[in-house]
Amino acid sequence: MLQQYYLKKGNRPMTSRNKPIFSIIPIGGLGQIGSNMTLISGMTESLIVDCGILFPNEDSYGINYLIPDLDILEQSSPSSLIITHGHEDHIGAIYHIIKKFPNIKVLASPFSSKLIERKFKSQKISVKIHPIRPREEIIFSDFSVTPVQTNHSIPETFGLFFKSKLQSFCSLLISDFKFDDKNPYESPMDLNYIKNISQNFSKRLLLADSTNIKSKNEKTPSEGDLITTFESLFSQNYKRIFVTLFPSNIFRQKTVIQTAKKFNKKVIPYGRSVENYLETAIDLKMIEDESGIIKSVKSINSKDDNLVIIISGCQGDFKGALRRVASGEDPYFKIQEGDLFVFSSTPIPGNEKKISQIMNKIYESGGEAITNSDCLVHASGHPGKEDLKILYDAFNPTDIIPIHGESHLLNAHKDFINELFPDIKAHVIYNFNSLLIDNNLEITTINDPPKPPLFIHGKEVLLEKDCLKQRRKLASSGCLFISIKIESLGKKRANLKLEFFGLPQLIQDKEDEIKWLINNYFAKTKIKLFEKSKEELKIEIRRFCNKLLGYKPIVFIHFI
Amino acid sequence: MLQQYYLKKGNRPMTSRNKPIFSIIPIGGLGQIGSNMTLISGMTESLIVDCGILFPNEDSYGINYLIPDLDILEQSSPSSLIITHGHEDHIGAIYHIIKKFPNIKVLASPFSSKLIERKFKSQKISVKIHPIRPREEIIFSDFSVTPVQTNHSIPETFGLFFKSKLQSFCSLLISDFKFDDKNPYESPMDLNYIKNISQNFSKRLLLADSTNIKSKNEKTPSEGDLITTFESLFSQNYKRIFVTLFPSNIFRQKTVIQTAKKFNKKVIPYGRSVENYLETAIDLKMIEDESGIIKSVKSINSKDDNLVIIISGCQGDFKGALRRVASGEDPYFKIQEGDLFVFSSTPIPGNEKKISQIMNKIYESGGEAITNSDCLVHASGHPGKEDLKILYDAFNPTDIIPIHGESHLLNAHKDFINELFPDIKAHVIYNFNSLLIDNNLEITTINDPPKPPLFIHGKEVLLEKDCLKQRRKLASSGCLFISIKIESLGKKRANLKLEFFGLPQLIQDKEDEIKWLINNYFAKTKIKLFEKSKEELKIEIRRFCNKLLGYKPIVFIHFI
Repeated sequence: MLQQYYLKKGNRPMTSRNKPIFSIIPIGGLGQIGSNMTLISGMTESLIVDCGILFPNEDSYGINYLIPDLDILEQSSPSSLIITHGHEDHIGAIYHIIKKFPNIKVLASPFSSKLIERKFKSQKISVKIHPIRPREEIIFSDFSVTPVQTNHSIPETFGLFFKSKLQSFCSLLISDFKFDDKNPYESPMDLNYIKNISQNFSKRLLLADSTNIKSKNEKTPSEGDLITTFESLFSQNYKRIFVTLFPSNIFRQKTVIQTAKKFNKKVIPYGRSVENYLETAIDLKMIEDESGIIKSVKSINSKDDNLVIIISGCQGDFKGALRRVASGEDPYFKIQEGDLFVFSSTPIPGNEKKISQIMNKIYESGGEAITNSDCLVHASGHPGKEDLKILYDAFNPTDIIPIHGESHLLNAHKDFINELFPDIKAHVIYNFNSLLIDNNLEITTINDPPKPPLFIHGKEVLLEKDCLKQRRKLASSGCLFISIKIESLGKKRANLKLEFFGLPQLIQDKEDEIKWLINNYFAKTKIKLFEKSKEELKIEIRRFCNKLLGYKPIVFIHFI
Repeated sequence: MLQQYYLKKGNRPMTSRNKPIFSIIPIGGLGQIGSNMTLISGMTESLIVDCGILFPNEDSYGINYLIPDLDILEQSSPSSLIITHGHEDHIGAIYHIIKKFPNIKVLASPFSSKLIERKFKSQKISVKIHPIRPREEIIFSDFSVTPVQTNHSIPETFGLFFKSKLQSFCSLLISDFKFDDKNPYESPMDLNYIKNISQNFSKRLLLADSTNIKSKNEKTPSEGDLITTFESLFSQNYKRIFVTLFPSNIFRQKTVIQTAKKFNKKVIPYGRSVENYLETAIDLKMIEDESGIIKSVKSINSKDDNLVIIISGCQGDFKGALRRVASGEDPYFKIQEGDLFVFSSTPIPGNEKKISQIMNKIYESGGEAITNSDCLVHASGHPGKEDLKILYDAFNPTDIIPIHGESHLLNAHKDFINELFPDIKAHVIYNFNSLLIDNNLEITTINDPPKPPLFIHGKEVLLEKDCLKQRRKLASSGCLFISIKIESLGKKRANLKLEFFGLPQLIQDKEDEIKWLINNYFAKTKIKLFEKSKEELKIEIRRFCNKLLGYKPIVFIHFI
């Protein structure tokens, strides 16, 4: 399979001296933040690592999320999908993978499985998920994969160690990670395993996270480092403390719950997302002591003070509980003087302004807000330069592909490698490029152009690019719907109806003038083709509007 | 006038013992970034300081900008509008002020006047602007105003010193400033004047800039500090150097032009905004040596190397020259290996993602990018804490109103004052609040709720809030137009036309089913009122779509 692919790309026919044995094609996540997905192929079998979604920009025109164009997967018909961890940018597109490959085998950790199953339930599909565990090797036809324990901002995050059966080649894909030996809730990254196993191979290819390569934090703080800050905050004389965080960060939720207990405060999870993740963690016995948790917000009253509210919406989402509370629209929580809001999170690029607006509303209502720039209330899940060095030291790679990051970060990661590790070869590739390893352990890259991502709106429905363009036009110019009765065209005044939508009063007041303009057109024009008249009328009406407004609304005309 | 206002607000009738003598009402700029505007009133005369616009969010639905609701100004009928400096968030809404008060006297510095006149030209209005200069007092009925030289990121930025004629009260409004004694192109802030004049008054109210109160830079760097960086960059072996900057920063343009000349590089201003500001600066002899400037991009060819391009679009604007070049759509400049892009600017909150996407495109095309986090290529125009201290020391205020900033920044500014200057009273007020000083020099604040800003689209046309809501609906759900011929209703199949816009193929394929649904409705329903049928049909069709799509499109129906 890999050989056909290689030939198809216009390469010289292979001899036994350069036969590709392994290939890596990133389908998403390289050059952008989100939609992480990688196609890994041995000589006769392919698998997909992760299948995430990309969150849309602000001007999303209703789009819920984006996914990579999956057509490229067809020629490989992957046998399996392996999930490294349960974040949406790694599991969110699983519905679309299963629709395309109904028989694909899905492998994930117990916690990730639970999150995927929750997703399946709402999407009304059902697929068996095979559990995977660290150090337990999974065998494929000519290579194997072994999950490796690592640390991140969600439990059960794995690196994947690929081992060729035939050649002295191995590869370690660690999409999202940090090295955290002070996390009280999980063991640190399994450096011993990485160190021991990699030394048996002469070619060692590492794929590693570039997210924080430009961060000022050389070493990413530990989840454990935050406990002191929370203890200090919870010991102070605040009325109520709202903590907003990435809800999938069960460690963080645990820290908040345990610290609250220490200071005799009750905890309320508030917002669907926080509640769901917490429930999953409790189900899996990741959180065992529930005694301080109030399950229903209805059981408290507005005078209750000694409360910690873990609240959804840390990215300022319009429908999030945090925005609702901040803007005074929440039925249960109204901000009072003495309330503290802890932003135990960081803005995902693009959300800065929304979050800032929420902070403004908190202050305008008499509350106070603390972010990570005031004190250590958030620890990233991604590696600083020091974390990367720890990983490089353990795996001792001959080659690195910077992954998980925008293009400028992948390049900064490459510069970092070139500067500090001149013996390691860094390969910057982007989505839809391929990297091939042949039987001489030589690496070739093929730079196919990336295909644009697909837009998903509503019940996992594809919204074609043209429709999105139409929505953009509607959004920025409003519309005018005109129906004209054909039989009335001979008369002095045609029978016609006008309806404005999304257009200012200024032009709505000109209805009579637009009607006059239409009648005048019919008076001077002999109609041969309705389609032609429609276009001519549209041009006239749009021109009329443009003179008054400075822009042209979309005009629809029906002759009936 | 001020007394009537005071009474109207439900205050106790005034005696001669507490008669307001001066009031400050921020109309914009407090609690948000942008649309700076302040109404200042003495006992018998009012004036407006600045009249800026607010830039819309990403999801702007065509909106060009927002302005404050100006109705509040009517009861004061301000005699004058004084401009502190020529940035759009201080002059952008001048058209709307002049439309409301055609006889208002406009006062501005020569450079600001030139910028306003350019605006008037495109808006086809004409108003005489009266020049103001530092230290030249302007007399009003019971107070005077004196412009004070300060530093910012645009030439001729003034503070305004207000002096009561009757009482020992003065106020200094310094909207945007920093203290820059190393700017080679203008003199530093006039601390001597501030120091000397303020000491004659017992009540000294300062209004000062909060933009950078949370900045890590305690002292804002000087424009002069950047020269070394540019010299170092221009001396290196880059092919072409694109410098993107805030085009109104004439100092920065000058630094780039002079440094380019030093290294024998030609300079091309590229993009309308950069070209316009540069032209204005040359007209006013702010830039005297034009010898190294290439005026027309047409005179160069793609092989020319030794070039510095000053390029518009540092905020990632969709129509900006920078985005066009980065995405390969520009007719003159295609990115080549060895090209450097210098982001000599900072992202305005909300634009981070757009700018990051441009950086990605630069790297994907083989270019390289440098921002202020790599080396000092940008100096803010706003004060760090050290700059604020310098100003406080000179003016020695008894009271401070933190201005120019989002609510959380105004509060941080207050905390800073309380902590370091416990003798100064900080007053946090928001837009549409009033601060009154009475003849006992006591300060009262009245917390009127703010009025929401107005949306402007196209040729300065107001877009009503409802229309914006309609556009939002169109944008996020698409629409379906249906016209039904009344005469055909008795027949087996009604004569009807359907048109989809912004809707996915999935639902477009269901045209026949929707037609069947409509005919079925007519078959079973006796039509009495078309309006009622229209609503019932809309509900049925929207429900049908919702089942398939997971959302309800906007449906328009015409019976004709």
